[in-house]
Order: sequence, then C-alpha cells, then structure tokens
Amino acid sequence: MEDTKKQTQLSEIGEFGLIARLTEHIQLKNSSTLKGVGDDAAVLSYPDKKIVVTTDLLTEGIHFNLMYCPLKHLGYKAVVVNLSDVYAMNAIPKQITVSIAISSKFSIQAIEELYSGIHLACEKYGVDLIGGDTTSSLTGLTISITAIGEANEGELVYRSGAQVTDLVCVTGDLGGAYMGLQLLERENEVFKVNPNQKPEFEGYDYILERQLKPEARNDIKELLKTLDIKPTSMIDISDGLSSEVIHLCKASKVGCSIYEEKIPLDLQTKEFAEELSINPLVAALNGGEDYELLFTVPLSAYDAIKKEFDITIIGHVVPESEGANLITTGGSVIPLQAQGWNPLMNKVE
Amino acid sequence: MEDTKKQTQLSEIGEFGLIARLTEHIQLKNSSTLKGVGDDAAVLSYPDKKIVVTTDLLTEGIHFNLMYCPLKHLGYKAVVVNLSDVYAMNAIPKQITVSIAISSKFSIQAIEELYSGIHLACEKYGVDLIGGDTTSSLTGLTISITAIGEANEGELVYRSGAQVTDLVCVTGDLGGAYMGLQLLERENEVFKVNPNQKPEFEGYDYILERQLKPEARNDIKELLKTLDIKPTSMIDISDGLSSEVIHLCKASKVGCSIYEEKIPLDLQTKEFAEELSINPLVAALNGGEDYELLFTVPLSAYDAIKKEFDITIIGHVVPESEGANLITTGGSVIPLQAQGWNPLMNKVE
Repeated sequence: MEDTKKQTQLSEIGEFGLIARLTEHIQLKNSSTLKGVGDDAAVLSYPDKKIVVTTDLLTEGIHFNLMYCPLKHLGYKAVVVNLSDVYAMNAIPKQITVSIAISSKFSIQAIEELYSGIHLACEKYGVDLIGGDTTSSLTGLTISITAIGEANEGELVYRSGAQVTDLVCVTGDLGGAYMGLQLLERENEVFKVNPNQKPEFEGYDYILERQLKPEARNDIKELLKTLDIKPTSMIDISDGLSSEVIHLCKASKVGCSIYEEKIPLDLQTKEFAEELSINPLVAALNGGEDYELLFTVPLSAYDAIKKEFDITIIGHVVPESEGANLITTGGSVIPLQAQGWNPLMNKVE
Repeated sequence: MEDTKKQTQLSEIGEFGLIARLTEHIQLKNSSTLKGVGDDAAVLSYPDKKIVVTTDLLTEGIHFNLMYCPLKHLGYKAVVVNLSDVYAMNAIPKQITVSIAISSKFSIQAIEELYSGIHLACEKYGVDLIGGDTTSSLTGLTISITAIGEANEGELVYRSGAQVTDLVCVTGDLGGAYMGLQLLERENEVFKVNPNQKPEFEGYDYILERQLKPEARNDIKELLKTLDIKPTSMIDISDGLSSEVIHLCKASKVGCSIYEEKIPLDLQTKEFAEELSINPLVAALNGGEDYELLFTVPLSAYDAIKKEFDITIIGHVVPESEGANLITTGGSVIPLQAQGWNPLMNKVE
C-alpha cells in the first residue's frame, strides 16, 4: 500500500498536528454550516428544513481489508455508505463528521491518503466535513462517520409507507459489489501464494469499482421529482436485496412478491459469478454493498417508471399475510430471508 | 466483570436481534426529535435554534480498560464525554447516536450492561438516543458517539472570544479523574499479582467517581444566565487544564496568566497524590478527563463570579505576546505546555 516516499510517524506531530494537517484545506460549502472544525462542536442552522442524521462504523478486518482496499478508496467509500442512508430518506446530505482510530502502524502519509478519499467524496457530493475525532487504537483502523442532511417538510420518505399494490423498484443493478469482493479475495489468495503474479482484473473493472468505489444515488430524488412521483417507502441496499425488502415489508406491515427474472444484474456480475459457479442471484439477494435504492411507488406511476432506463420494477406489494417472497423464473414461491451481511458473524453467510 | 447468569452469545440473536433488544424501551423526550431509531436515518427539526454537533471515539485499551471500568460506567461516561462538549458551546444536548464495534468475547448481557449506562446518561441529561450502528471488531470494544444540541441565536460561546483583562474561570475541581485512574491502575497491578487481595479504595470514593462516572456541567449555562453573565470564550477540560488554556488562547489570539495557588484541587486528589509522591498540580494541568468547564468572563463579572462556590477564578487574559503561563506560588513564570492526554502516544505524558 505504502510507497517509498518518506513516511512520517504520528508521534512526530502528535494529535493536534495531525488534525491541523487533515483539516487545513477545508472550505465550507453549505449555508447550513455556520462553523466547522475547530471548536468543541460544529454549529449548524436549519430554520426551514427537516434534518436527517445517520451514522456508520467501519472496522478493519470486518468491513474492509487493507490488503486490497486502497486507503483513498476506503475513505471515499466510508463517506458514500453514510450519504446513501441520507438519500434513502429522500434527503440531501450536507455535513459529515469523521472519527478515526488508528494504530501506530499508520504513517501520516497513510492517514492523509485516507482523508484524500474523504475530501474527494465531500467534494463530489457537496458535503462539508465539520468535525470528528482522531485517536489511537491498539490494533487496526476504525472509521466512524455521521452524516447530516436536509429535506423539505413532506419530502421525507420512510421505510414504513408501502401500500398493497404498490410497485417495488430498484435503481441500477445488484450483486456487482459482492462479485467484486470475490474477485479481490481470489486475487489476494493468489498473491499470498505468489507475490510476483500479476492480479487478473481484466474485463472486471465494473464489479471492482462497485466494490472499491461505490457511489450513492444522489440522482434519484431529483429524477422522481421531475416525474412527479413520491415514493411511498424507501431504503438503501447495503445488506443485499433480501434483507432490505424484509426491512421495508416489516416497517410497512405488508408483504411483497419479487420476480427473479426482473432483478437487474450487470453482465460482468453474471460472467464472474459463472466463472466461480455462483448463482448471481445470490450475490444480488444476499451480497450487499450495492448502495442502490429500493423503493415503492403507487401503481399509477407504472408508465412513468417503466420508461426510466436506470430504474427496474422488480415486483409488487401484497398483503402482509402473503409474506415477502421471491417468485422464481420457474414459478416457485420462495420466502425471502434476511441473511445478507451479518457483520456480527464476521462473514457473509 | 461478568457474573454467573446465563450469557447469550451474539451469534444466537444476530445484529437485528441485538438492535431490537437494545432499543426496544427507548422513549423519545424532546420535541426536536421527530423520528429516532428504526429507519435509514433519524429525523430532527430545529426551526428556531442553532444546532451544535460533536463526536468522540473511544477504543478499548486506549481510553478505557475493562479490567477496572465496569461496562455500565463506561456507557455512561462515553455519553457524558460528548455532552460535555455540547455544554462547552453553552448549548443544551438533545440527541445522541451511539455506534459500537464489539468482538465476539462480549455476550448480549455485557452489551446490555453497556447500554444500561448509555440509557441512564440519556435519562439524566434529557437526551434522546436516535440511532447508531452495531457491528463487530476483530479485537475489543470501540464506542463512537455523536451528540447534537441546541442553543438560541446569540447564546453560543466559542473558544475564540477571550479578551485581554478577562477573568479565566474553572468550574469544580481538577486532577481528580487522573488520580482516580492512578488508584485503579495501582489496585489492578496488585490484583494481577494477588487476585484474592481486596482492592483498597476506602476514603477515595470521590476520585474514583471522577474517573469512573464523571458528570458533564449541565448547570453552568443556567447559573451564568441567572448571574446575567455571558462567557466570552469556553472549552471543556477533557485533556488537562494546560492543553485547554492553550487551545483557548490560540483560538482567541491572546495570552493568559494562571495562578498555581488558585487551581482548585479536592482534598482526596491532594492526599492520594501525596501518597504516590505526585505533585497534584501535574494531575490538574496534564491529567485530563475532569470534564469541568474553562471559560473567560469580562472583568466586570468579578463580584458576581467571586460569590459562586463552584466557580474559581484562576487567572486573567493578557496580550498574546506575553504567552500562556503558570505563575507559581513562588512567583516563577512557567510557560504552559499542551501535553495533556496524547492518545496517539498511547499514554499520558
């Protein structure tokens, strides 16, 4: 990961020196940010908006492996993961705080690399970095990010509004991030056996990017507004489609039918799944980390949604008593299971 | 730490089961909290207030030692540490998010114990627990808390407003938390040699409580308001008086003179320091974790402040060119140094 340039030890500049280096170039972008880094707390003002707050904690060895996740990508992804939750509320992210715990194995340059990814994501998504904490850990790297966003009254979309007959929609395609992870893990195993062998990533740039540099769907709120459609419920797909459908159904007290043949899969996802003899459907249902949006719309929105290239109708909402099921291509009805990622088990189940 | 009651493994109930158990009894208290735990993000509304946001990350082995820090106390303290930053802005905390990363060594009961302390602090300080993340770590426990608070326009106090001739004040007394830590570490060493020997804590309940169950100064804002005094600058004392005075001076572009004999020390702090042949002043200046407030007020507030039993005037603000100095009882002038806690060095320097 680290190059041959001089590496500065953290002990040379201390915590305050590190914070100064990491925050010196921050320029606040949003009018809701009155004061950012530099006091006991940041100060915000949201007189006319509702405010959403979400937080995520990523730990080394569980959520990321520094053997194949470059620090800049990790910083970027850590931000995106949180912003995705804000977009899933149909809100717009405006501020983040970033806390990191680092062991002494990290040089200043490594931490700056991490922050360069964090700053890049802030730039791309128009978000202000307003505070955080920088401390040490006995082992590895931990990143905790809190994102704050805004929405007008009436714009917010919860998990709980899905109605029977609503259409179930997803953005983009699913399973790519999981297959990208499989690819990275395979090449990492090869590398461990033979460090001189060049990793074989050719033709798999899309699934690699889905894993290493995912983007949050910052376009969907605007798109649906243009179509004059307000989703009845929404959630982001961080743990795999299966878990998220179940969360949505539980919160809305409904069931749903999802059609296997409708689930959007990219060609690379399918090809690499085939190479590994994995059913790509499993990657989509249980893989996680796609950061697409899952939402429901009234049946009346069918024509408008149908025309949107990047949104797929994958099923419809049914009464709660019918449960949340996958209807296979062969017509079988299989209950969806909330397995997804289970970070508490330390593995993908 | 753990008793003989049946311990449930995390793998038995999974992440969603754990979250359900930890959040099932939450009752929202504040009108600014529109929606708490249970969606992609919490929803807040602050139409008439300024909002402050602060965050802290605590890691096992660096910020706490589970050998002598009970989990309930740890949960309580983790919240208090963050609320203290909100009070240091002259604001009132209203919401927190809590993220934890836990290794498989923790049972459900252990995590519930941690959360019982978190809930207790929320209860005591009138704060809503609105969200968080629960995940695993390869080693130990990490706690990340973000606190959100409110203040009316014009009430906020920054680090940057101190003026030459202002009085420098502190609440409560200093150095107690550090001496409490020394006591716990001494008894822990004794325990390691002889697990049957009862720890000797008698007569040291105050410094133990300062370390294990600190409180944030939620009374000072109201008190100063009653006295019709608005501090010109304020910061909380988390890293030792020395560091905080320097932060305040740097932000305000001033210097200051702090008088050794004025620094408030509790009798137990002095007694235990004497027992260990430590200068209690060092505990106050560099010890940290007292969570008292350091603030400056105009000279005109002298008479009113002087009468307050729990506030001590320890010095005054001077021009920046004179620096930040400690004036010893003997009259020597010693520049203050921002050593304090340096968690990046993994020790108190």
